[in-house]
Amino acid sequence: MLAEIITIGDEILIGQIVDTNSAFICRELNKIGVQVYQITSIQDDREHILKALQNAKEQVDLVLVTGGLGPTNDDITKKTFCEFLNDTLVEDAHTLQHIRDIFKSYLNRPPLPNNLEQAMVLSTAEVLKNKHGTAPGMWMEKDDTVFVSLPGVPYEMKYLMTDEVLPRLIKKYDRPYIYHKTLLTYGLGESEIAERIAKFETGLPADIKLAYLPSLGRVRLRLSARGSNRDEIRNSIDSRMDDLQLQLSDISIGFEEETTIQERISALLEKKNFTLSIAESCTGGAIAQMVTEIPGSSKYFVGAVIPYDTKKKVSVLGVDKALIEKHSVVSAQVAESMAKNCCRLFNSDLAVATTGIAGPAKGDSDREIGTVFIAIAGPNGVVVEEFMFGKARERVIQKATNKAFEMLLKEISKI
Amino acid sequence: MLAEIITIGDEILIGQIVDTNSAFICRELNKIGVQVYQITSIQDDREHILKALQNAKEQVDLVLVTGGLGPTNDDITKKTFCEFLNDTLVEDAHTLQHIRDIFKSYLNRPPLPNNLEQAMVLSTAEVLKNKHGTAPGMWMEKDDTVFVSLPGVPYEMKYLMTDEVLPRLIKKYDRPYIYHKTLLTYGLGESEIAERIAKFETGLPADIKLAYLPSLGRVRLRLSARGSNRDEIRNSIDSRMDDLQLQLSDISIGFEEETTIQERISALLEKKNFTLSIAESCTGGAIAQMVTEIPGSSKYFVGAVIPYDTKKKVSVLGVDKALIEKHSVVSAQVAESMAKNCCRLFNSDLAVATTGIAGPAKGDSDREIGTVFIAIAGPNGVVVEEFMFGKARERVIQKATNKAFEMLLKEISKI
Repeated sequence: MLAEIITIGDEILIGQIVDTNSAFICRELNKIGVQVYQITSIQDDREHILKALQNAKEQVDLVLVTGGLGPTNDDITKKTFCEFLNDTLVEDAHTLQHIRDIFKSYLNRPPLPNNLEQAMVLSTAEVLKNKHGTAPGMWMEKDDTVFVSLPGVPYEMKYLMTDEVLPRLIKKYDRPYIYHKTLLTYGLGESEIAERIAKFETGLPADIKLAYLPSLGRVRLRLSARGSNRDEIRNSIDSRMDDLQLQLSDISIGFEEETTIQERISALLEKKNFTLSIAESCTGGAIAQMVTEIPGSSKYFVGAVIPYDTKKKVSVLGVDKALIEKHSVVSAQVAESMAKNCCRLFNSDLAVATTGIAGPAKGDSDREIGTVFIAIAGPNGVVVEEFMFGKARERVIQKATNKAFEMLLKEISKI
Repeated sequence: MLAEIITIGDEILIGQIVDTNSAFICRELNKIGVQVYQITSIQDDREHILKALQNAKEQVDLVLVTGGLGPTNDDITKKTFCEFLNDTLVEDAHTLQHIRDIFKSYLNRPPLPNNLEQAMVLSTAEVLKNKHGTAPGMWMEKDDTVFVSLPGVPYEMKYLMTDEVLPRLIKKYDRPYIYHKTLLTYGLGESEIAERIAKFETGLPADIKLAYLPSLGRVRLRLSARGSNRDEIRNSIDSRMDDLQLQLSDISIGFEEETTIQERISALLEKKNFTLSIAESCTGGAIAQMVTEIPGSSKYFVGAVIPYDTKKKVSVLGVDKALIEKHSVVSAQVAESMAKNCCRLFNSDLAVATTGIAGPAKGDSDREIGTVFIAIAGPNGVVVEEFMFGKARERVIQKATNKAFEMLLKEISKI
């Protein structure tokens, strides 16, 4: 059972937007045992759409098409599907009513003719009701291939995938079981890891695949397999992963399949009933943003301060001015003081603090660009570490954020 | 002159990572007049790579391949290129030395055999030196098609594109001029805009394309054209865009081609010599993170406080407890007080404040989930607005962040 995703939209091919829809669809299909063979992104161009649909039909069983269903003239997916499937557009009464209802309830104005045109669907299509928008999804079949057309707006596409497409796929197809498990490691490069686990890798059976995914100070190691016997596959991968984790116990922090690092921190804070605050300077809000992204974070996250200007570290966070003058604002001493004072200011059990130079300018310190100090204050005192994250601003911020979560997890695990 | 991007990596097709490389490459190619015809994402699979290379060769002049160049066994791009181009791998002395240098300078250990293997390149390839990593890029030609192989690590890929690939493309090919201009609008839906500018749209010449890009409270309108006469194309699009901006003057905030909204705010703050601080509750750091993403933001951004817990709005930001009890923590009054107090706490000219309920739980307020108040305090007083951003946590945060920047830009423009 193979699938192809076709994303349609000039904005993708001129780089105006990043296609995040495909990653979501791939993840969801994988979970139910459908393997994505290819993702193809093309323009809103009739000929190219026809060619891509034909190619996909020849190589896969399921074709998921996103985009080109809007109410404006640049949206041509529907009429091109008509041409490809020798079909015509007909008005769908339910969709028409749904569009009228949406305009009545949310928009306080009557729908325009181009809004009502969104009720036109392929005559042979099964219509998938879009609760979150006016463009319905459509499920079509030609020979042995299923074609599904979905809107490109991520929120609407996600709803239709989850509530309409996946249940139909589960019902229609016998699917193998696909299982991935990913070990997160911090601190060693992929080539060193590869050398350390060379024996493990050559000992893997042919049906288990090992992949290395390096990024910004982390390497993720993924084992994958597919087959008909769910338990056999899971046991086989789980036992090998346990082995791998043991061999890499000094650098592994857990399995990604289960949770991200923020989610693990979140779960631990809730379980241990600790509160957290943040004092971030060079990371500029990136840590707080990732903490508060998680639903329910208000249970343990009490607040943050971003004393970006050096003076605010003194006036808002109460760092001793003399300390800054003596050691420079980018120093272990200042990071430690920021973390301690943050705990006090927010009356929290734990605090993370960052101070560093993300560049391009040096700011109020004579340290090298890329230098970052990260401190974690907790019931057992403060730990501080110094890092050099290179010269690229964006990467310095990202690496410092990753490292802060890594240190925080380590400290929370201890207490 | 058409290009295709082929991204190789199982992690893309199982949805473990989002492919951001393609958007970058598309943008850069567009700037120099190369049109991207298709993006194809495939697995680390020999047969599929061969098929994709052959397909691309038949439909475009330039094929850019990213990924699969790492030092581990799952990376098979190089040997598959050998098969496709009937070539063999040879050791490149310069790359070998470069790898040794990197290990000596940055990693403090000798390279492993698998690191040194990265010096093996196709014998007919022009080697593109990768200053930021150990995997070199390669430039190959077959018949009339150019194939470029680049590492998948975004930082390394970007460097090679900018410093090695683009200069070679500019030298080798005569390219047309491609021009896009995008108008940013806030506040109206795409169908309403389409109706308002229907005459404008039908009056466009065939060689100018109009696209609508709706997302989270904004609609971007893009005009695109290509041709040989740079000035003619620019003038033609510029004058039509001026016309469009005039027709939509009540909802347009400027051109995206020039700057993002944060960059415009950044430029205005610097020019007018104003300082900015932020007090964000429901947005949890997202606004500060976007402000500090911009290089040089320390010139005007002095700091932020994220009083996530209601009590911290009182203890850290000095909001009157009675005010919260009287109006609820999610109210215009509290947003106003947060903005005013933030200006005072950070001694800044302007402050943005957000308070709302992102969900899934209601927290310390009886207001509906999705309710957000945003306040901007400045020299002329405080403006506050109330919004309803729906029930999805992620979207509430994003929409509130977008709206805060929109309000901030409006206020800064006035003073």
